[in-house]
Amino acid sequence: MVIDCHGHYTTAPKQLQSFRDEQIAALKDPKAAAPKVLASITDDQLRESVQPQLKFQNDRGTDVTIFSPRASAMAHHIGDATTSLDWTRHCNDLIHRVCTLFPENFVGVCQLPQTPSAPLANCIEELERCVNELGFIGCNLNPDPSGGHWTAPPLTERFWYPFYEKMVELDVPAMVHVSASCNSNFHATGAHYLNADTTAFMQFLQADLFKDFPRLRMIIPHGGGAVPYHWGRYRGLAQDMKRPLLTDLIRDNVFFDTCVYHQPGVDLLLKVVPAENVLFGSEMVGAVRGVDPQTGSYYDDTKRYVDAAAIDEKARQGVLEGNARKVYPRINGLLKNAD
Amino acid sequence: MVIDCHGHYTTAPKQLQSFRDEQIAALKDPKAAAPKVLASITDDQLRESVQPQLKFQNDRGTDVTIFSPRASAMAHHIGDATTSLDWTRHCNDLIHRVCTLFPENFVGVCQLPQTPSAPLANCIEELERCVNELGFIGCNLNPDPSGGHWTAPPLTERFWYPFYEKMVELDVPAMVHVSASCNSNFHATGAHYLNADTTAFMQFLQADLFKDFPRLRMIIPHGGGAVPYHWGRYRGLAQDMKRPLLTDLIRDNVFFDTCVYHQPGVDLLLKVVPAENVLFGSEMVGAVRGVDPQTGSYYDDTKRYVDAAAIDEKARQGVLEGNARKVYPRINGLLKNAD
Repeated sequence: MVIDCHGHYTTAPKQLQSFRDEQIAALKDPKAAAPKVLASITDDQLRESVQPQLKFQNDRGTDVTIFSPRASAMAHHIGDATTSLDWTRHCNDLIHRVCTLFPENFVGVCQLPQTPSAPLANCIEELERCVNELGFIGCNLNPDPSGGHWTAPPLTERFWYPFYEKMVELDVPAMVHVSASCNSNFHATGAHYLNADTTAFMQFLQADLFKDFPRLRMIIPHGGGAVPYHWGRYRGLAQDMKRPLLTDLIRDNVFFDTCVYHQPGVDLLLKVVPAENVLFGSEMVGAVRGVDPQTGSYYDDTKRYVDAAAIDEKARQGVLEGNARKVYPRINGLLKNAD
Repeated sequence: MVIDCHGHYTTAPKQLQSFRDEQIAALKDPKAAAPKVLASITDDQLRESVQPQLKFQNDRGTDVTIFSPRASAMAHHIGDATTSLDWTRHCNDLIHRVCTLFPENFVGVCQLPQTPSAPLANCIEELERCVNELGFIGCNLNPDPSGGHWTAPPLTERFWYPFYEKMVELDVPAMVHVSASCNSNFHATGAHYLNADTTAFMQFLQADLFKDFPRLRMIIPHGGGAVPYHWGRYRGLAQDMKRPLLTDLIRDNVFFDTCVYHQPGVDLLLKVVPAENVLFGSEMVGAVRGVDPQTGSYYDDTKRYVDAAAIDEKARQGVLEGNARKVYPRINGLLKNAD
């Protein structure tokens, strides 16, 4: 079985975006009331909407996608805590419906109702709802709900601890994932995402978060941003700062996905980072949608790169399945053909 | 000859930091006057201060360092335009004195007197002074004078064009280099620097800056941040956005240095980026100062990685010398043993 740890519902029916458009319009018009109800979406419309994902799973030989709402659309910087909560619940509910329709193909991970003025308001409650009531197995945690202004405290500060306590209690990990950028300096998928990955890793390196939470697990997406490419820099920084060896620092707590869209990048990742800390991910249908003329395959068909990487079969099996089962243990109760 | 395009004067005599401390103290005390004069530094003190750099040049088999003021100390976010100008001129003047004392070992690149409220105030004048009067061959341009709040316009906006016109007129390139971070999310050398590199590249990808300035040359340091590791992502983004091929986009205008502190990273860089667009750099004495226990050599002894990379000798020669001569053409008039 091949588990793709990084898929977003980028193909949701248009009713979802219509709800969001109405929400945003209401924010601009003091006389308008914010919408509360999502227009009806039929099961058939949901089935139709995920055909691209199902086709890619089939074509690429992957089985199940750990599936979450569209990351760029979380846009926690828009509106207030209520805006974020209403939007988040609808997004998560749709993920739940897709996972219920296709229990062998999708397992849910939730968006959180973060908001810049109080990034944790409502997040614990929504995480509990999603895990306990909807059967989700993790969450996407945004280290920058301001959308490119970076006004929240670093992820290692005690501010976040109540949320981490709940994550540990529920035994679910978080993927550290920013959303759209409202800072014109940062293109979302071409800069903000990768910067956030790099930033989060360095925060983890600097502090003792995982001493306080030995069972807290964080996935840094997009291959860890700049980190594996600069693995020597980080080893050296850790050494100069008298911090632990990187392999010790990340062992049970920090994981990278394989959303790196060319063979040399995935080769580097698997050369420098222990394979136990790498989870197969493709981000499909996502940031890059074209076919690479150099290979004739989709850029985001990352399974090809993992298949071709010079690692032993046990390590490859871990990357493709076993590591995800360890990092997201709740997946084991959900997959029909679990081994 | 081996030219290291990336060295900062991190070992300046203590009088320089004392001046800065007084400047900062005066900012906090409305009754105090900002200092204007730097305490006397003798030539012997300057000679002594660069012994570490000279020893590393000798030990590592490099010849000349393109030398600029300490990047993290530029701190354009401190004070106002006058603070920045006074500090910048002293820093640049010291670089000039070092280059005059050791004309075979150091060639100058200037800090700019940027400031968040008006990042370009005084910059054109200081660039002219440094190039025309002090014999400098380039500058370090900070895309984020706010120090981690990213309040300046993207580098591709017309706001920056008057400065670019002067760069083209003087035929000098800029290294895109941020300074210290005053945003607690961003560790300077472990996050902010790499994020800025990644951000700048994506800005260049999105806009037609180099159509407007075909002779403008930008060096993105630290191996291009996350970019080479995500070269497939960027090729795919450019394709989806109907932008030029990356190799065409960067050909005459965007260059990466080799400040990547392990062999796999430099191997990747030279595998995916055309060697013509890579300049040898080490950032010594800089961000990472230790010895890598895996190799027994300094992390930042990047010449070893370039020497071991699987490229042909012509390409290697370009990386180590020829490309720097093209990107910084004014170096050719300064080096005694120019070939």
